Amino acid sequence: MRVLGIDCGSERTGYGVIESDGVAHRIVAAGAILTNRKSAFEQRLAVIAAGLRALIQQHSPETAAVEEVFYSANVKTALKLAHVRGIALLAVAEAGMSLAEYSPLEVKTSVVGYGRAEKCQVQQMVRSLLFLPEAISSEDACDALAVAICHATHQATNERFARVGALR
Amino acid sequence: MRVLGIDCGSERTGYGVIESDGVAHRIVAAGAILTNRKSAFEQRLAVIAAGLRALIQQHSPETAAVEEVFYSANVKTALKLAHVRGIALLAVAEAGMSLAEYSPLEVKTSVVGYGRAEKCQVQQMVRSLLFLPEAISSEDACDALAVAICHATHQATNERFARVGALR
Repeated sequence: MRVLGIDCGSERTGYGVIESDGVAHRIVAAGAILTNRKSAFEQRLAVIAAGLRALIQQHSPETAAVEEVFYSANVKTALKLAHVRGIALLAVAEAGMSLAEYSPLEVKTSVVGYGRAEKCQVQQMVRSLLFLPEAISSEDACDALAVAICHATHQATNERFARVGALR
Repeated sequence: MRVLGIDCGSERTGYGVIESDGVAHRIVAAGAILTNRKSAFEQRLAVIAAGLRALIQQHSPETAAVEEVFYSANVKTALKLAHVRGIALLAVAEAGMSLAEYSPLEVKTSVVGYGRAEKCQVQQMVRSLLFLPEAISSEDACDALAVAICHATHQATNERFARVGALR
């Protein structure tokens, strides 16, 4: 399956597209959509929307995954992020793709095997799981790849369970 | 000028289009975009986006206004609202319209003359300012018309100030 992971942010929205059978993953594309700090917020949202649409059209992922919004840190930041997240969910829905949401804990548990893993551990595991010669330099792209890997793994596990259930 | 006011909500997004010279206002359209509670959130966002785009295309407003997001009540609700607000801002930006944001206090002060006015007072004043035979039954449409009236009034005042400044 081809999975798009999105790491929402008003300044940088990370993305990662992987091809996966749920066990072995291969990177297709990764990067970040950058917006101009000086632009009006709604113009930045338009840049993110256009970027995501182009990405979906180019790589045709079947399913997408985003992190759940968490608001422990700063409500103002979380609200800004939620605007961007709205744009991401819209792009996914309008492309007719399925969507999954995972908590940061679920992503880290899935990728590193430990829910309280450090950023660098996630980076290291993303690199290792995708057989990359070096770590992904963009933190946003790396987070997006991590949520994509998490989704691919969950999806494959669910499908296996469904098959086992059907055999009974 | 033709102004679109939007009152964001994941269940009902109110809209109001008015034609105004900043003093006299005329209603063009008002209502609410409804979404299905049972649908996935991203599908509801897609319904709101499609509704707003159709509305903008039909009525060609030049400028739009929304209320600032406020989060005193419930962070979870505010975050949901912010997703919808992201969609509204995107629709406005993609249509090339200008956007203004007002606090609930500014809207009430502009429409009723008192920042802590009750809902029913806002409804009454919206009805009166638009010369409507009866009050708008949809609270969401009424709130959207209120923010549109607020924006039209502010915009006209700013333009008058700019003209006076230019004459000096």
